[in-house]
Amino acid sequence: METLDHPAAHVARALHVQGGSGRPVEDNLVQEGALQIVVNGEPYSITMRTPGEDAELALGLLYAEKVFDALEDVSAVEEKPGSDCSATVSLTLNRKPASQGARRLASSASCGVCGLVSMPSMSVTAPDASASEDTALDLSLLETLEGRMRSAQRLFQRTGGCHGAALFNIGGDLLVLREDVGRHNAVDKSVGALLRAGRLDEAAVLFTSGRVSYEIVAKAARAGIRFLLAVSAPSSLAVDMSRDAGITLVAFCRGGKGTVYTHPERVTGFAVAENPKNAEAKS
Amino acid sequence: METLDHPAAHVARALHVQGGSGRPVEDNLVQEGALQIVVNGEPYSITMRTPGEDAELALGLLYAEKVFDALEDVSAVEEKPGSDCSATVSLTLNRKPASQGARRLASSASCGVCGLVSMPSMSVTAPDASASEDTALDLSLLETLEGRMRSAQRLFQRTGGCHGAALFNIGGDLLVLREDVGRHNAVDKSVGALLRAGRLDEAAVLFTSGRVSYEIVAKAARAGIRFLLAVSAPSSLAVDMSRDAGITLVAFCRGGKGTVYTHPERVTGFAVAENPKNAEAKS
Repeated sequence: METLDHPAAHVARALHVQGGSGRPVEDNLVQEGALQIVVNGEPYSITMRTPGEDAELALGLLYAEKVFDALEDVSAVEEKPGSDCSATVSLTLNRKPASQGARRLASSASCGVCGLVSMPSMSVTAPDASASEDTALDLSLLETLEGRMRSAQRLFQRTGGCHGAALFNIGGDLLVLREDVGRHNAVDKSVGALLRAGRLDEAAVLFTSGRVSYEIVAKAARAGIRFLLAVSAPSSLAVDMSRDAGITLVAFCRGGKGTVYTHPERVTGFAVAENPKNAEAKS
Repeated sequence: METLDHPAAHVARALHVQGGSGRPVEDNLVQEGALQIVVNGEPYSITMRTPGEDAELALGLLYAEKVFDALEDVSAVEEKPGSDCSATVSLTLNRKPASQGARRLASSASCGVCGLVSMPSMSVTAPDASASEDTALDLSLLETLEGRMRSAQRLFQRTGGCHGAALFNIGGDLLVLREDVGRHNAVDKSVGALLRAGRLDEAAVLFTSGRVSYEIVAKAARAGIRFLLAVSAPSSLAVDMSRDAGITLVAFCRGGKGTVYTHPERVTGFAVAENPKNAEAKS
């Protein structure tokens, strides 16, 4: 396999089959490999991820899991490549890792729940006061945000096989976009990137290409995000948790449309019609 | 929230925003909650999943992770509901759980890699001899398989927020379809369902609604599946592992089309054209 113009896309030979005929093609595939995260010399977790931005992924994941609270807690980050797209990132903290409760090991694709020994509480706290706390998001920006995100998803354009997570400021400027085979990883990478740059407090909007499950909401809340936008559907738990955390959740964001599930008082740019309509099948 | 006609779909009020106007709607959301799996009295893992078919999920996951090798190893399965869509499934095995290597805890959405302490080998063994070993799959069946799968995805039709995994026999008859917020969970549930029914050896084709990562290939290989079909993209690792495991991987299966990445010698129903064409952007 040879590398194309994106370092995480690789070319494979395949056979495209359609209407009774098969045609040999060269196809771009997203890379996947194991990342081991080590904290203060102790193995913390292994996660499958797309190679690249491994330090950002580790920083974002460990921040989300409250292993550290600020970049100042991190005295060193060391990346060591392995074979077959694998790698190890070792973090040295100035102090002992913050209490992990009953957590022993994280987690597939950096999910924040699994790997726990006992049942988690399933609650998230509201984000700390941030620049976006008292502001509203103008939903007439939706299509613009979508466009900015999509044009930055270079790996997806190549492979069709990865998720994207973008962070915007409240004015709709794209601060960062990261891509990964895992939904959670893409969020961790984008948060980790801004954390490392000391710019996380500018982020008001998280736009994810995938579905919104509980863990995505927990990661958003931890990062101080007030507006969570998604191309796909939320789970019922994600809606409940967004409501509790004071996060405005807008899902099914496609073509300038979106469905607001929580805290509609903080979105503007539209007039509310009066007639409720029953739920419809979405297939 | 009140239950609609699918037990894992719940109704929420939301605001549909489009073109400057917002309209109150009632919307169906897929449920999500934590499942704790206990093996012989010891906590094994916690995973976020859609409630329902919890015993099948536990059976499929533990089979995939080689905790047991046959249904005869399982002497009891006990389900205990918890609060907020959570539950516990306790399995009693006739014997000690099979060696887990360095694995201490599984795994988000039943990923088979994460939760490991040290780097996994990233290799899978070919499925055991099975009914489908020397047979070929007729790809002119693709659209039929898609249709059978889609019409069985009742929760997705309601919520747009979950994955599906279907198992077919080599003739294209649908044996089982299961749905879940997690890609891996849907596969584990469908394998667990056939395992429990003593019919896993009839399964020749796994059709997944999502992307194909390493773990999906590993689960398919363990279940003796020879044909892995997916609506979305594979990772490069998934392609490499499918090749090694003797699995024919066909991805981007949509509208009767598909791209064959490995072992094209075991698919029929088309004639191969000669001119290779370069990879194109997929956006």
